[in-house]
This record gives sequence, C-alpha cells and structure tokens, in this order.
Amino acid sequence: MNEESRDIFSEDLGIVIDQAEPGHVTAHLPISDKHLNQHGTAHGGVIFTLADAVFARASNIHGIPAVALDTSMTFIRAARNGETLYAHCQEAALRRRVAVYTVEVRSHDQLVALFRGTVFRIPQERETKAGPHH
Amino acid sequence: MNEESRDIFSEDLGIVIDQAEPGHVTAHLPISDKHLNQHGTAHGGVIFTLADAVFARASNIHGIPAVALDTSMTFIRAARNGETLYAHCQEAALRRRVAVYTVEVRSHDQLVALFRGTVFRIPQERETKAGPHH
Amino acid sequence: MNEESRDIFSEDLGIVIDQAEPGHVTAHLPISDKHLNQHGTAHGGVIFTLADAVFARASNIHGIPAVALDTSMTFIRAARNGETLYAHCQEAALRRRVAVYTVEVRSHDQLVALFRGTVFRIPQERETKAGPHH
Amino acid sequence: MNEESRDIFSEDLGIVIDQAEPGHVTAHLPISDKHLNQHGTAHGGVIFTLADAVFARASNIHGIPAVALDTSMTFIRAARNGETLYAHCQEAALRRRVAVYTVEVRSHDQLVALFRGTVFRIPQERETKAGPHH
Repeated sequence: MNEESRDIFSEDLGIVIDQAEPGHVTAHLPISDKHLNQHGTAHGGVIFTLADAVFARASNIHGIPAVALDTSMTFIRAARNGETLYAHCQEAALRRRVAVYTVEVRSHDQLVALFRGTVFRIPQERETKAGPHH
Repeated sequence: MNEESRDIFSEDLGIVIDQAEPGHVTAHLPISDKHLNQHGTAHGGVIFTLADAVFARASNIHGIPAVALDTSMTFIRAARNGETLYAHCQEAALRRRVAVYTVEVRSHDQLVALFRGTVFRIPQERETKAGPHH
Repeated sequence: MNEESRDIFSEDLGIVIDQAEPGHVTAHLPISDKHLNQHGTAHGGVIFTLADAVFARASNIHGIPAVALDTSMTFIRAARNGETLYAHCQEAALRRRVAVYTVEVRSHDQLVALFRGTVFRIPQERETKAGPHH
Repeated sequence: MNEESRDIFSEDLGIVIDQAEPGHVTAHLPISDKHLNQHGTAHGGVIFTLADAVFARASNIHGIPAVALDTSMTFIRAARNGETLYAHCQEAALRRRVAVYTVEVRSHDQLVALFRGTVFRIPQERETKAGPHH
C-alpha cells in the first residue's frame, strides 16, 4: 500500500490536501451545488468525508497501513453553498497498533464540526495481504 | 422545508431509499469505482453518507426539521467494489426537541458499520409559545 | 489476568452482573443517594459505569484480555433515586484484535441510554508469531 | 437549580474541581484502590466520571441548566494506582439550545483519554419544572 495512492472519492468531491506531515494534515473543500442536502446546506456526508480525508492521510503517513475503527463527529453549524471548508487534523496519540486523531472543520474561522477518529495499524508483516478500508 | 426535498449529494452518490416510514428507513448503495479510497475499498465517507442518508430521512419524517448534532460510526469490515451496502435506520427515542437513531450497514448479511446519531428538532413558529422541552 | 478478577469499582457502586455468556452480558444497579449528581438524578458517570461493566465483562469473556479503545454514550432520559437500571450488552463483532459491543440501559422498559464500545484484544505470547490481524 | 449544588457522586469519588470559569474548567483525581477495575488500573467509569464532572460544571456555568445528550471517550493509556489524573474542559461551541465541550485527561503530561460532549440547554421558562440529568 502507498499513502500516495489516489483517494478517488475525496478527489472527485473536490477535497484538496494542502499540507501533510507527520502529526498535522490540512485540507480544504469549496462547497458547491453538488454537496448539498435537502436543507440546501453542505451534506453531513460531505463534512464527514473532508474530516475523514485528513484523518486517513495523517494516519497512513507513517508507512504502516491504518484502518479506521471508530469515528465521532459533532456538527456545530451548517455550511452554505459557496463557503470553503478547512480541515485540520492533529495526531493525539501514536501507539504501536492504535493511533488517535482529532479534526477541526472551520469556515471563516468559525467551527463547523469536531471529529475524532481511532485507527488500527496493521502489523507490517501482513501489509501485502491486508486490504484495509478507511 | 420539506422532507421530500431532493438530497442531491446522496442521490448523486447512488443511494436509493427503499422504505421510509416513521421509525424505520432503509436504503441501499451499490459500490462502484467512484466510491473507492486509496485502499481500493469503499471510502469511509461513502459508508457514513449512506448511514447519514437514512438517519436524515428518518429524523425529518415527522414534519419538524431535524439537524444532526452528534454522530458516531464504528467500522467493522471493508466493503469492496461491486458489493451492495444496505442500511437500516431505527428510531431509538423521539423527544420534543431531540431524537436518537441507530443505523446498521450490512453487505451480504455481514455487518459493515454501526452508526448512532442525535438530532435537534428545530422549533417551529407555532411551537414557540409552548416552551419547547426535549 | 483473569476475567473473574474483581472489578472493585463496579462492585462498590452496587452493580450486579446477572448473566454472562459469550455474546450477551446483563447487569442491574439500584440507584440510591450515593449515585446522584447536582440535579438529584443518576450521575452520567454512574450510567456510563454500568454500561462499561457489562462491556468489560463481555469483551473479556473469551480469555483474551481486552482494553477499551473507544466508547460513546447517548443519554435519553434521566434516572431517579430508587429506580433500578438494567444493562444488556451484545457483541456486534469479534475480530482477532478488535471487537465491538452495544449496550442498552433501561429502567421500567424505557430506554435511559445507548452505548457502543470498541476494544483492542491484547496479543498473547502464544500469538506473537502468528502475525495478529484484526 | 444551582450550579453550586453538590455533585455527590463526583465528590465521593474524590474529584476536586480546581478552576471553574466560563469556557474552562479543570479538576483532578488521585487514583486509589477503590478506583480499580479487574486489570488493576483505573476503571473506565472513573475516567469518564472525571471528564463528565468538568463537562457538567462547564456546561452549567452560564446559569441555564444543561443536560448531557451525547458523549464520546477515547481511552489512550491506562492510569495506575497512585497516579493523579488531571482533566481540562474547554467550551467548543455555545449556542442557544446546544453547547459542545472537549475534555483532555492527563497524567504526568501524558494523554490518558479524550472526551467530547454535547448538552441540551433547557429553556429558561421551564427551569423550575425540569429535572435534568447529567
């Protein structure tokens, strides 16, 4: 597996990774018509996918494939058409088999959502056989 | 706002709502190339969006607009290209201002993910004098 | 480590495990003065501890030590002094290194809280050569 | 209701609130024999209760009764007998009816657990009738 492999779904959505280094990953996503829900605001799945994209990149950056186990997201305010969302992922803990990340999603310096995710890091001797999801 | 309003993002993703009645909503999504992550399996954001779609429909079915506050998702196994995912949302609690839902996502009768979500039900003008209480 | 080891904190709280078999664990707790918060109802920490007790027993029942990674709890209604809370834990997934559990907490057949938890199952010496994989 | 009301369960556990001002609440808890689980480390319910105590104080500090809706906790490392745990709660969002808090639990400057919680703030005209839990 390769951390640089294309993440088709995130890219097609319009998510751009701005910075990716061990411990910190940032990205942004301009909200447009295709991202809307029945209320006319950014779909929860869009905001989650943005958070998941930086979480996936941050957790796979160490060269050991990492699969998401648990995620939680609190939605704080709606994001409207035309806004740009910014996500910042920080590594809270890096253990041998488990790592923990927090993500803040903001628009115009206002908090849109908070995310926390835990990954399982697949033992290296099995890397070639494992087909992790994220 | 109308519970029948189009949920553009979910529809474009390929999510089909199969059943929607108070207390129970089901949907399915065939996984194809566009849904994949860098590991070649269904993106976490895709699985979340499927769960979020049935959660949104179930929580808006009572005629009072409901917005997601908190969601959590545990990923149990990867879903591969060509599989069809099925989601089933159940209403766990319906209070005046708050409601709680659980969603199971399955493929071939195997659990793919578990989701739980809480919504805030937005007070309507006719309710404002009643002193809303969840 | 031994799944039958005393869980001092849970016992002192008054939690009684009623049934413990692979896949299902139930317990109950009569709420009394010592369990109250500043609102005069059962403290969130008490309800969490009840859920955590059945989660811990269920996840350690297979003979491999299991430690909690992630937990989430939605509080649905308050529990008052004199009520008895009943918790039922079900195993949702059992993988080699990870397992997932859901718990319902009820009082008088009304839902008080929903809990979900994920554990990491600690590799034992005899397993280390097998290349653990969840 | 009074934010200064005694939180019997937290106090009996040994939790001491060190600082409480709008936006920030800190507390500590020395771990002793009575806090242990079957692994001989601090029970998950003890760590949760510490986080819940600062969350409850922070969310009730504005004079409007706040009841916990959703909480999530990621356990990062075990806390042993004799260690002192420190919790720091920050207010992430304060809306009219909903507020969101994050809590870090540390020991010796190492992260023990991360918590996030959402409260429903009970409309003031109903304060005298409502019996919120936390």
